[in-house]
Amino acid sequence: MKAESNKIFDIIAFDADDTLWHNEHVYVDTHEKFKQLLRQYHDAAWIESRLNETEIRNLRHFGYGIKGFTLSMIETAIELSEGRVGGAEIQTIIEFGKAMTKAPVELLDGVQETIPPLAASYELMLITKGDLFDQEAKIARSGLGEYFSRIEVVSEKDAGTYKRITAKHHLAPQRFLMVGNSLKSDILPVIAIGGHAVYIPYKTTWVHERVVEEDLDTKQYMTIEHISQLPDLLRSFAEKFNE
Amino acid sequence: MKAESNKIFDIIAFDADDTLWHNEHVYVDTHEKFKQLLRQYHDAAWIESRLNETEIRNLRHFGYGIKGFTLSMIETAIELSEGRVGGAEIQTIIEFGKAMTKAPVELLDGVQETIPPLAASYELMLITKGDLFDQEAKIARSGLGEYFSRIEVVSEKDAGTYKRITAKHHLAPQRFLMVGNSLKSDILPVIAIGGHAVYIPYKTTWVHERVVEEDLDTKQYMTIEHISQLPDLLRSFAEKFNE
Repeated sequence: MKAESNKIFDIIAFDADDTLWHNEHVYVDTHEKFKQLLRQYHDAAWIESRLNETEIRNLRHFGYGIKGFTLSMIETAIELSEGRVGGAEIQTIIEFGKAMTKAPVELLDGVQETIPPLAASYELMLITKGDLFDQEAKIARSGLGEYFSRIEVVSEKDAGTYKRITAKHHLAPQRFLMVGNSLKSDILPVIAIGGHAVYIPYKTTWVHERVVEEDLDTKQYMTIEHISQLPDLLRSFAEKFNE
Repeated sequence: MKAESNKIFDIIAFDADDTLWHNEHVYVDTHEKFKQLLRQYHDAAWIESRLNETEIRNLRHFGYGIKGFTLSMIETAIELSEGRVGGAEIQTIIEFGKAMTKAPVELLDGVQETIPPLAASYELMLITKGDLFDQEAKIARSGLGEYFSRIEVVSEKDAGTYKRITAKHHLAPQRFLMVGNSLKSDILPVIAIGGHAVYIPYKTTWVHERVVEEDLDTKQYMTIEHISQLPDLLRSFAEKFNE
């Protein structure tokens, strides 16, 4: 670990999708293409709600990621066309999936300016949920891989996951900071194990990721609007702590 | 790490699929069901060869695992029926995929007798290639998870992967032993980084995993027929080393 005075965290961990790079728009765009493809069978709102239902129902079979999502699109197309959907349309859906795996990785504003200098003074970790193959490909294409000395791709982000990761890397939770855009996956479970968390909301939040307001009453974490505010926040943390 | 005299390895790592539990038969059985489903369009040999082609072509999009394989089955069905395959048949293929994710995990003979006592004297690691979600589910269902203090699910098993894993866990390659059923994935890359390997051939080897004989000329590793022979092999290793 990088030794430096007045640091109160041994490691800063980041979520990746919609924290470091845009991801949700790839799904949102594909939902749109899917509704367009099937417009002869149903109206857009109905297709959207059926697709969301199928996705949630299939999580236990397929987990998170592009391949599972593609299979859910195919299943939805068959269901809502009552089997009338043709081979060419199914093949188009598979091509939507392949295009998603090749989508360019676009960093969020401020990431390119914030991460490299931060990596010079803190050890950085990446903790990302989803399909191993998808996530590794995005890390490689992001150009940020070298700044993260530890990378964990996990299938679920709950308190047990963070407990396992901090234990595995010999990290004390009270000296562990997680930064992410999902209250459910990046913030609440980290608080639950006694860690610290910084919440940077993304413009939209995936419907499966929303938490109810009541869960938030007694929770403590910090919110910033933009990743470029993180270095200042870390400095004020350190000052407060060293007062 | 567990300290004990006359041990020449700090850790013993195992491949999982077809080394600890049967896996290939799940794919072989599904190939058969797939050929049966599409028998009205083509003969079995042609379907088999087209499916293998699609699988290999799609590895770069989807990687290894059940979801990618299911998408390859769907794509093959569309191609070889020239788009005539119906929604009900595609749904049946998706159900084949879901059944694969739920297939019972059957340990290979001797595993249940060999792994727990071995874990009492050696630290054991699991290094398995494939889809994170599939592999975690199988580890959980195998009942063996508790014997492996370190688990790595990787998307590829080449020399770079083993170099990264040994470095990450602070393991000297010459004190690292890998046990597995694939020369290409478990044996040759480990030898290449200066580690040791024990090869336990499975009755069949997946066509994508075969290596050409010439690659083997200058390689050194040990072969046993059955995992129950591993403890004796480790003892003779230790005796030889301590002579």
